[in-house]
Amino acid sequence: MQPQKKGGQEMGNRFEVVAFDGDDTLWHNESLYQRAQQELAGMLAGYADGEMVMSELYQTEMRNLPTYGYGIKSFALSMIETAIRLSSGRISGAEIERIIALAREMLTTGVRLLEYVEGVIGTLAERYPLMLITKGDLRDQRAKLAESGLAGAFQYVEVVTEKDTGVYQRLLNRIGVRPTRFIMVGNSLRSDVLPVVELGGKAVYVPYHLTWEHEAVADAHAEHDGYYELDDLRQLPALLRHLEEENE
Amino acid sequence: MQPQKKGGQEMGNRFEVVAFDGDDTLWHNESLYQRAQQELAGMLAGYADGEMVMSELYQTEMRNLPTYGYGIKSFALSMIETAIRLSSGRISGAEIERIIALAREMLTTGVRLLEYVEGVIGTLAERYPLMLITKGDLRDQRAKLAESGLAGAFQYVEVVTEKDTGVYQRLLNRIGVRPTRFIMVGNSLRSDVLPVVELGGKAVYVPYHLTWEHEAVADAHAEHDGYYELDDLRQLPALLRHLEEENE
Repeated sequence: MQPQKKGGQEMGNRFEVVAFDGDDTLWHNESLYQRAQQELAGMLAGYADGEMVMSELYQTEMRNLPTYGYGIKSFALSMIETAIRLSSGRISGAEIERIIALAREMLTTGVRLLEYVEGVIGTLAERYPLMLITKGDLRDQRAKLAESGLAGAFQYVEVVTEKDTGVYQRLLNRIGVRPTRFIMVGNSLRSDVLPVVELGGKAVYVPYHLTWEHEAVADAHAEHDGYYELDDLRQLPALLRHLEEENE
Repeated sequence: MQPQKKGGQEMGNRFEVVAFDGDDTLWHNESLYQRAQQELAGMLAGYADGEMVMSELYQTEMRNLPTYGYGIKSFALSMIETAIRLSSGRISGAEIERIIALAREMLTTGVRLLEYVEGVIGTLAERYPLMLITKGDLRDQRAKLAESGLAGAFQYVEVVTEKDTGVYQRLLNRIGVRPTRFIMVGNSLRSDVLPVVELGGKAVYVPYHLTWEHEAVADAHAEHDGYYELDDLRQLPALLRHLEEENE
């Protein structure tokens, strides 16, 4: 939304814009959903086991996705539908109110940044114009960014309904940046990495919630299938320095 | 989202961009909500009279607005909450499913354009770059535009969370258009007219659902309080011609 203040081009950088995904790249998101799902499973324990609840909820969400789209309100409606179906309509009004309250808690809960995010974003914002490209509900995502304390660091903020090559191309056209001078960082291969690589841009894959600890990060600067993989965002400034030097 | 194809400036127009609101300016929206409300009132007839249902629903919506924002999914959650409260939790699972089905119908119902919209938008798109500026759910609004058949006519599409002077100013900065060369058309004095007038732009107020018929539109070109008021969109091309001539 903001007018361009300073371009990476003027600053002699290889990358004119460094872009980030939001959910589960900058701040926790999936964990909120998982907590709510566990509460729902507890509430429906008299009707179905946990696995059945998860499976039914997932199927309901997938069925509703074309109509509802992403976001917490869509999730709430799918939880209510699942609760009614699995209880054969015996779920009480008070329990449905509790499901609505869960959604409201998700919407109003504080944004929790992932580790290293604050420092890394602060550091990179000094060298690059940063862009946030996130899917989901426009209002929810803007509220999260405002609450994250990171809003001032992002020169561009884009909330989109899908993240495919067409969308990335349009965003790049609009700001007049060629894909080769664009790098995208995110936790989703499908949304953050592959479409950008397909356009000829660079991408950094930072999976959410690594369940094991890598001993070394020796290959962090190695490119596999056109993108880089990092354990966490802490390694990003070094990767960018490496890529800038490579270009000189 | 699209790159600029041709500017009103190059075409020698007073207005470089003509912008429109969507809901209840280009397509019907409020009538969808009213139909759903009437169904809800029917469903709750055993618990409360129609007026009480409307009042309770409205209060619930207003209370939820800061958390939920606008849109059909927010409305659905408020309807469910209202039904549970007014029935003291006695509403059945099947009835709540019916409320969810109402929301789904609203989300999937065909977009119905207001009268004259298609012709007027087609005519104006030949002379001006057109912009859609609409509040609400990003996904819902994009789907409505796609379904309306009007998407090709709009060079700029902006879905925003609020329409205040700050938002209009940022949109205009981004496309490099001064407020004096911008005109906004919509059915809301608060969102479409007053903030634009405050910035020094022109605005055209086209109220939704006039319940009476004006005999004459003799004063359609008269400016009151900095904006113009039209009975319907059919009069817009003539008003724009008048304003362009005034400027010559």
